[in-house]
Amino acid sequence: MSDVTKKKQVDRNRSIDPAVLEVLSKELPCDTAYDRYVAQQPQCKFGDTGVCCRICIQGPCRITNKAPKGICGATAYTIVARNLVRTALGGASAHSDHSKHILLTLKALLDGHAPDYSIKSPEKLRAIAERFEIATEGREDMEILADVVKLGMDDYMRMSGDSVKWIEKTVTPGRVEKFKSHNIMPTSVFETIASATAQTHMGMDADPVNLIFKALEAGLADYTGMHIGTDMSDVLFGVPTPVFTEANMGVINPNKVNIAVHGHNPLLSEMIVQAARDMEADAKAAGAEGIQLMGICCTGNEVLMRQGVPPVTNFLSQELPMMTGAIDAMVVDVQCIMPGVQAVAECYNTRVITTSENAKIPGAHHIDFSEEKALEQAKHAISIAIDGYKEREGVECCIPSDKNKVVAGFSVEALYDLFSAINADAPIKVITDALKSGELRGVALFAGCNNLKGVHDENHMTIAKELAKNDVLLLATGCAAGTYAKMGLLTPAAIDTYAGDGLKAFIKRLNEANAGKLEGDLPLIFHLGSCVDNTRATNLATAIANDFGVDVPKIPFVASAPEAMSEKAVAIGLWNVAMGLPVHVGVVPPVTGSDLVNGIALQVAHDVYGGYFMWETDGTKAAAKMLEALDYRSWKLKVHAETAEKFSAPASAAW
Amino acid sequence: MSDVTKKKQVDRNRSIDPAVLEVLSKELPCDTAYDRYVAQQPQCKFGDTGVCCRICIQGPCRITNKAPKGICGATAYTIVARNLVRTALGGASAHSDHSKHILLTLKALLDGHAPDYSIKSPEKLRAIAERFEIATEGREDMEILADVVKLGMDDYMRMSGDSVKWIEKTVTPGRVEKFKSHNIMPTSVFETIASATAQTHMGMDADPVNLIFKALEAGLADYTGMHIGTDMSDVLFGVPTPVFTEANMGVINPNKVNIAVHGHNPLLSEMIVQAARDMEADAKAAGAEGIQLMGICCTGNEVLMRQGVPPVTNFLSQELPMMTGAIDAMVVDVQCIMPGVQAVAECYNTRVITTSENAKIPGAHHIDFSEEKALEQAKHAISIAIDGYKEREGVECCIPSDKNKVVAGFSVEALYDLFSAINADAPIKVITDALKSGELRGVALFAGCNNLKGVHDENHMTIAKELAKNDVLLLATGCAAGTYAKMGLLTPAAIDTYAGDGLKAFIKRLNEANAGKLEGDLPLIFHLGSCVDNTRATNLATAIANDFGVDVPKIPFVASAPEAMSEKAVAIGLWNVAMGLPVHVGVVPPVTGSDLVNGIALQVAHDVYGGYFMWETDGTKAAAKMLEALDYRSWKLKVHAETAEKFSAPASAAW
Repeated sequence: MSDVTKKKQVDRNRSIDPAVLEVLSKELPCDTAYDRYVAQQPQCKFGDTGVCCRICIQGPCRITNKAPKGICGATAYTIVARNLVRTALGGASAHSDHSKHILLTLKALLDGHAPDYSIKSPEKLRAIAERFEIATEGREDMEILADVVKLGMDDYMRMSGDSVKWIEKTVTPGRVEKFKSHNIMPTSVFETIASATAQTHMGMDADPVNLIFKALEAGLADYTGMHIGTDMSDVLFGVPTPVFTEANMGVINPNKVNIAVHGHNPLLSEMIVQAARDMEADAKAAGAEGIQLMGICCTGNEVLMRQGVPPVTNFLSQELPMMTGAIDAMVVDVQCIMPGVQAVAECYNTRVITTSENAKIPGAHHIDFSEEKALEQAKHAISIAIDGYKEREGVECCIPSDKNKVVAGFSVEALYDLFSAINADAPIKVITDALKSGELRGVALFAGCNNLKGVHDENHMTIAKELAKNDVLLLATGCAAGTYAKMGLLTPAAIDTYAGDGLKAFIKRLNEANAGKLEGDLPLIFHLGSCVDNTRATNLATAIANDFGVDVPKIPFVASAPEAMSEKAVAIGLWNVAMGLPVHVGVVPPVTGSDLVNGIALQVAHDVYGGYFMWETDGTKAAAKMLEALDYRSWKLKVHAETAEKFSAPASAAW
Repeated sequence: MSDVTKKKQVDRNRSIDPAVLEVLSKELPCDTAYDRYVAQQPQCKFGDTGVCCRICIQGPCRITNKAPKGICGATAYTIVARNLVRTALGGASAHSDHSKHILLTLKALLDGHAPDYSIKSPEKLRAIAERFEIATEGREDMEILADVVKLGMDDYMRMSGDSVKWIEKTVTPGRVEKFKSHNIMPTSVFETIASATAQTHMGMDADPVNLIFKALEAGLADYTGMHIGTDMSDVLFGVPTPVFTEANMGVINPNKVNIAVHGHNPLLSEMIVQAARDMEADAKAAGAEGIQLMGICCTGNEVLMRQGVPPVTNFLSQELPMMTGAIDAMVVDVQCIMPGVQAVAECYNTRVITTSENAKIPGAHHIDFSEEKALEQAKHAISIAIDGYKEREGVECCIPSDKNKVVAGFSVEALYDLFSAINADAPIKVITDALKSGELRGVALFAGCNNLKGVHDENHMTIAKELAKNDVLLLATGCAAGTYAKMGLLTPAAIDTYAGDGLKAFIKRLNEANAGKLEGDLPLIFHLGSCVDNTRATNLATAIANDFGVDVPKIPFVASAPEAMSEKAVAIGLWNVAMGLPVHVGVVPPVTGSDLVNGIALQVAHDVYGGYFMWETDGTKAAAKMLEALDYRSWKLKVHAETAEKFSAPASAAW
């Protein structure tokens, strides 16, 4: 940890984002997450290491030297493993709930009850149908959609007798076999969530290995929900293609009606974008220059990648745009919406509008969002923002000027389109050839959140810069992508500053092959979407593995959640391990209270699944470990001779 | 709290069961739950009051005066309510998992893959079918079963568009309307579990009322799973009828192969009973006088009520029978199995045999139970016990002599059969007439667990005795029933000792009307089954309400969990409140950290649903509060003049 970091721990300025630091430098009328983190110190070490059990109300029990077992006799490994399963379930449930609403909207569309929605990408629909061997020839889109939606719903509801099709058809044959032989293939999303919760009830499973396998099953249920979510969102709202915009608080325009959309689910935010275009005149009639939409967190990523809406900030700083005084409304949907936003809104001139019946905040406006009246409700939200703008007259706004250019919107389809300009027959060979030649040292996915246990955005930036310098192809989703958007890493200019020669050459070749096709050049890091879109990265890893003719555990591909925070991040980490990837986590999760569980995460998982975790809070060390993991895999693949020399024997492996 | 109780807090002798105290009085080679409870003191007050949040890994956050909000801004009411929802979900998942296995066994039976099972009660099957308007006339049992199983599975899996049939058809019309109008009617068991878990993810619902309503929905999902479980177990293993046996550790016979069955699910234990009968000769060949089966916890209740197997002890003391040295095997299935049993088994001569893939204990024997090989696997378990017996030769056993007679097996059908001897046309009028006449002051259900926060069995006994004296008709399930079995309250003799004149007269009339039909007289308390069988009590309450022509919130019927411990108990408490009952809980659950949530539980719930909670750790005071609640309802019903005089106005009500 750098000296700067250490210093920052004593005050609230735990960020490297200059816009955030500018807002925090002021005397503020209310607290923010940064203040509340300081107030929560010191945090409980029992919970922090996973050895606090509150599963029955004889507890809480805490494992100590004096009391090495809970009242029921559960040891540290049982308690830590049970807590891990429940955390993974929180994530799997959240993602699957998100995607359930998209599936149900498609069902409503089929039933004629979602008048404002339509199939935006029949191509994607047909591609999904073909994946599952659903007939497409000579059939109407709506007929195909009915079959696809039924398949998705079956993968949610199935009670016994079969397993999830969305996994079977999107991973390598080797992974399917591994998941089935190790009994972690979910029967369905719902079945896994219910049975895993039951398995962690008082007096149920005490076996840590059995529990960790169930956590991996929960991870795969999470994968299922996520993949269905991405696929169905693409059908409903279009497959993302490269977009060019800006990010960070400098995008706030004091002369416009400023509306932030925040949360995760595109169902409403896509309608907000449409409604905002329709209501530009209303904003002008109220004296504004127009409407400025902006995104926060993953709803921000959704409308960025499909509509070019600028991201104003990411998770941790979600309260701060309001503190500029210029945000008229913040429309929120689901997940990662700090309840703290309402107290901030009340100190400024912002209307927080909740829109999910399952995510309300006392004191906020509430629109009970329904797919039947989606556009009408979106317009209602915007009219509330316009009312806010009218009341803002004369209020001084303090808006940080920081903003950066952004190139985003890289679905796998968009990447393949770019690669096709080089190799139309086998686009994925653009990556595998670069890996074989040593031009690229590997591929890394940056995912996940922000977490005040570290310094906001610091790990994201440190690790990405280090890997870029070392010629690793960088992909990003969620609030990791949010960091890179705000901080200028989703730009062509960042290539010159940070990329090593190999990575530079790789992207240059892509730019040259696609010259004139895009509005501008490609960025240093490829923004793959919101956090629900991490399966796009798995699709790439699967294609790379298939092209190499090996299973995923053998390819130089690594994932990192440099600032993991939510249960969703835990679930994503687990399925990435099951998929066979080395997974770095920049926050030590609550498993270190059991050497056994921790050892399984760090070592044993590798022996069984090929993937494994690396906890490393120091960004520079984390980058070194990730590079080591990539190089070891490259050496094993013998893709180039140089790396092979580095290792004398497998015994020196990073794990 | 009595002086005796206070004294007991300083040592491990926290029980009033003489058999338990006898075992604990010895110097033991390993610890038990009683010791571990002492070692865990003092317990964390944050967890104990519900204000510890571990939902994201920025936490743990704890609410204090210095830090009144979590890092995300969640206040005490959000944190407490979210934790409550997750606790309720643990319970709903556990019960539904139990019943899912029974449904799937019936499905296997239909498919010809469960050769050792059969339909034991075609009458119950037809009664269930008629409840759901499934045709029965001229149809084979297996045809009807297929329809009933499909209905049950639909109530588990449904994703949208309808609600749970098992609720709609088993409660009053008033309750159905209430649940629908207040949006707490589950779509299905799985849907509620998944969506409620999602609703409590980081940055989701911050609204405590919305969260508590979701907790009630989770409670109703729990009710669904439980009711399906009871119905299907009755079909598969028979509707319980009165059985006569004994209980407590005195049933252990040192000269026999002693096998304890423990857990909750009858699928294996019913086979163990059958196998034990078949293998009596094997036991004798090994030098034993035979096989002595005995039950612990709710598997104990299952085989008690249908097979007359004696209960050896209840939840809290589950480790102690092994400490007599005479238990050769303990066969466990699911839920409430302390991991601590294995360490005790290793100090004595007991084989712990786990049988569920979702509930393993490191070091224990494991039989991977499958309905395809059920009887064969049961025999394997018994052969392991016989091996144990052979190795026990010469080992001194110290078996407490305490045991009591038991009369159990009172399904609603069995009660109606008894009532029919008095009123064949309308059996339920036997209760409602007694309530109208004042002979009975009300009806009380005792449910739930043991909890070392109090003294083992003490609250169960204190409250039941007090209510019996006051002419309340007493029903019991689960480990409450276990206490009464062990302590002699499931006997006719207890009537003379504890019942008031009204209750005496009521039971005497039943005995006289049924003279000669049963092996003996009726007991003081009616044992309704295991904890999954609490819906039997609801069926009675519903019948009483329907007979009075009112909804459940108006009838003098109260529920109590004097020693609640598990998440299942919390879920059961919640649905009993939703059903409209006053629910006493003898342990303060982790909600007092929020005055708002606590207030909703204690007061607001009543205004909305008619039911409400009462926390009271003192048994005598609890009994007084329960009587007050019964009397207030009787007064409101104006069923008899005496009680009416007691209240001058509704303002003096207990709530």
